Amino acid sequence: MHQAGDLPVEEFRRAGRRAVDWIASYLSHPEDYPVLAQVAPNELRAALPKSAPEAGEPIETVLDDFEKIVVPGITHWNHPGFFAYFSITGSAPGILGELLSAALNVNGMLWQTSPAATELEEVAVDWLRQLLGLPAGFEGVIMDTASVSSLCAIAAARHALSDLEIRERGMAGRTDVPLLRLYTSEQAHSSIEKAAIVLGLGKAGVQKIPTDDEFRMDVSELARAIAEDRAAGHRPFCVVPTVGTTSTTSIDPVRAIAEVCESEDLWLHVDAAYAGSAAIIPEYRHVLDGCESATSIVVNPHKWLFTPIDCSVLYTTQPDTLTGAFSLVPEYLRTAVDGQIRNYMDWGVSLGRRFRALKLWMVLRSFGSQGIAERLREHIRLAQLFAHWVDEHPDFERLAPTPLSVVCFRARPAGLAAAGGSGTDDANAALNRFNETLLRRLNATGEVYLSHTDLRGVYTLRLAIGNLRTTEEHVARAWELIQREGRRLERDEGSS
Amino acid sequence: MHQAGDLPVEEFRRAGRRAVDWIASYLSHPEDYPVLAQVAPNELRAALPKSAPEAGEPIETVLDDFEKIVVPGITHWNHPGFFAYFSITGSAPGILGELLSAALNVNGMLWQTSPAATELEEVAVDWLRQLLGLPAGFEGVIMDTASVSSLCAIAAARHALSDLEIRERGMAGRTDVPLLRLYTSEQAHSSIEKAAIVLGLGKAGVQKIPTDDEFRMDVSELARAIAEDRAAGHRPFCVVPTVGTTSTTSIDPVRAIAEVCESEDLWLHVDAAYAGSAAIIPEYRHVLDGCESATSIVVNPHKWLFTPIDCSVLYTTQPDTLTGAFSLVPEYLRTAVDGQIRNYMDWGVSLGRRFRALKLWMVLRSFGSQGIAERLREHIRLAQLFAHWVDEHPDFERLAPTPLSVVCFRARPAGLAAAGGSGTDDANAALNRFNETLLRRLNATGEVYLSHTDLRGVYTLRLAIGNLRTTEEHVARAWELIQREGRRLERDEGSS
Repeated sequence: MHQAGDLPVEEFRRAGRRAVDWIASYLSHPEDYPVLAQVAPNELRAALPKSAPEAGEPIETVLDDFEKIVVPGITHWNHPGFFAYFSITGSAPGILGELLSAALNVNGMLWQTSPAATELEEVAVDWLRQLLGLPAGFEGVIMDTASVSSLCAIAAARHALSDLEIRERGMAGRTDVPLLRLYTSEQAHSSIEKAAIVLGLGKAGVQKIPTDDEFRMDVSELARAIAEDRAAGHRPFCVVPTVGTTSTTSIDPVRAIAEVCESEDLWLHVDAAYAGSAAIIPEYRHVLDGCESATSIVVNPHKWLFTPIDCSVLYTTQPDTLTGAFSLVPEYLRTAVDGQIRNYMDWGVSLGRRFRALKLWMVLRSFGSQGIAERLREHIRLAQLFAHWVDEHPDFERLAPTPLSVVCFRARPAGLAAAGGSGTDDANAALNRFNETLLRRLNATGEVYLSHTDLRGVYTLRLAIGNLRTTEEHVARAWELIQREGRRLERDEGSS
Repeated sequence: MHQAGDLPVEEFRRAGRRAVDWIASYLSHPEDYPVLAQVAPNELRAALPKSAPEAGEPIETVLDDFEKIVVPGITHWNHPGFFAYFSITGSAPGILGELLSAALNVNGMLWQTSPAATELEEVAVDWLRQLLGLPAGFEGVIMDTASVSSLCAIAAARHALSDLEIRERGMAGRTDVPLLRLYTSEQAHSSIEKAAIVLGLGKAGVQKIPTDDEFRMDVSELARAIAEDRAAGHRPFCVVPTVGTTSTTSIDPVRAIAEVCESEDLWLHVDAAYAGSAAIIPEYRHVLDGCESATSIVVNPHKWLFTPIDCSVLYTTQPDTLTGAFSLVPEYLRTAVDGQIRNYMDWGVSLGRRFRALKLWMVLRSFGSQGIAERLREHIRLAQLFAHWVDEHPDFERLAPTPLSVVCFRARPAGLAAAGGSGTDDANAALNRFNETLLRRLNATGEVYLSHTDLRGVYTLRLAIGNLRTTEEHVARAWELIQREGRRLERDEGSS
């Protein structure tokens, strides 16, 4: 008779080894699977019972079904041909960190509820701070995602408007709260606008500043928008530049923006979720130029720092304002050591806190700063190489600068580009349709997965590099497939 | 030469087996460790280097340090003597689920970015919905914590006030938004007030309704508060009863509250983070009485359903309002299948989404509904037994009803209770000090960890049962220690 649920130790050991072996095998050849799951909607749901079982099932059966039913519906972010969104890697040390965290199952809400969880978080985020070249005044905390880190930073920025007493009095039912205005570029991530919505500032609270030819925030437009808002009686309170935008990885001129924030007394929150990690490469430290003047900055180790999702680090030079915005300590959460230690529950929305620091610490130690820099440097090299191939090919064109590891481009077959006259709206619409179809066909190969964006009306393909398993060979293969599918599509369209 | 970071497969296999073996050994005897970490502030920080290494270190060294430096600073939530806060268990199937999720490392933001992650989430939360006895109209989503689930529910409740257009226009700089009012009991969890603060409603947006002798929301007071607010021109919009409050696990009269919400047209959000799971026991289904009329309800499998932290399920009968509050889809997140499938990024704050459904699904299958019910029933039996011991002892008293698995009590030694006259403020202050010291001494034994709360000025000890390893023997041992330390403390105080 098997014992369901809380397994006898030998059964756990056996199942754990089976899982480790499966992972070892999986991570040795994720390319045996199609990168983008080739399943139709509801396939997995249809394959599973409608209800939970009454009697417990043996763990072996559950693991069998994991392999047979779940894995075929997985889109493989570990696949070396994963070039979509931001390509990531949950490295082996990070996976082991997650395993150990799950086993310890501590809730690090208070220092007392696991001193090691709190202190290892302080250590790991401080190590990372140094690697990023941020000054010692920045204190860090780990959140799940940049969406939440930015939300918390903007909440702190709002709380810094102390005369408005928003924490106590809220913003509704009052006539003495002016329109609060946050500035970010038109290329900023959607999470910034979402944060404003959640915080009750609304879309009306966000002014999207135009960008230059290289998709970077136009600082004179920023200054103008702030002046106009002040003239209209609104209250500017926060500017959110991006270091490494999602569409093109453009880098806003943070130093110039910081000067505006300084003179206007605004909270400067930098979204460096993806590109912040690049500052670990000595010759790329400049990506965080000016960020030493930021009030807060978010960097996601789960993006380009080999840490399994989720792990987002928020740094701020005003931790008291952050905790002032969030701390709420009922009697049942008071401890005898409060005041001597840090209770991370005071630093954000979530009371329950997983022990995320462990995986980050294990990654930093296992790779070392040089090991990290080497790999990031290689990713950038591969992206530059691909960008070069695109530039050299008459039927393709690059659509944005490639400062880091993401290439924006499109197919531009001579015949099609000329249709309706090169450069006209008709020609662009035809190219948009062509590239959208090309992307669908590429992703259907199962060998590569790219995503897209829109750049001023141009349907843009993105090739993002950030996976430790991606080598030059994989990038070359992607380029081969892109050319092949491009030719085939051109032929098919020509013959239709 | 070792390869740092992304380990060669055989090295990962070896390190993975070592981790599994360590966990197997650890989970067989967590009671070998003190339950509450017996460390001073900064011990762990002092034991670690000030900076990350430049060169990568072998994974074996990192695992050595995990065992030597990290584990001694852990408060062991797995210890059978863990009776603090809400006692939890990350069961073996859940740990394996986390390991596999970390290895797959998918971001389930979109259906396409891992169809299995989205569909398994739909399956797992629907299985759980059935086990809880909630009607089919409830659609679920997994969040990290109840803090975030409740924040999202209240944001949806705010969004349901469609005439105010808060998503678009925000609440600042307007004179046409009345004070928005949310009602919850004075015993509600701090996360409800925190959500109101974050959402810009402020503490002023929350009316805490008094509770009855058994710490349950007084519905006539609720109705009166709503009427008064309407008379004052405020806008009631949401009521948040609790099923299983943090201090005493009291259960608000949801059915009667639902009638108020129905007649007043208010969003009814139920915080059943801890106690919702009890509804899986057939004879305890009544804990969710009335919840079939809720607009949303949160239940945390990471609390009392053997799933490793973090896993909180939010159900709502108005998913369109929830997604209306949160959905924001930039071009780079559009896919060809949108409209045919569910993109869970639209259901909350975080864009990045860990594959949390896997562990929940593995737990539900491994235990089965009967296996879950059996264990929860046993936890309740143990709590009732302990409550009985307290009731029978002349020097202790219970301070609240014990509907589920948490007992609120205090020592009340005859000599001390009489000091200054029984029942006076002086006597109570003396008892408060006595129990606070008693708790500190108990927790210093390393054998048990209890936490406390305040009930109307009374310092209250809480014994919470929810750990799969806790047997009657452990509860009896806790009771022995409580009596022993009580006697010692009385003696020490008498002699001082």
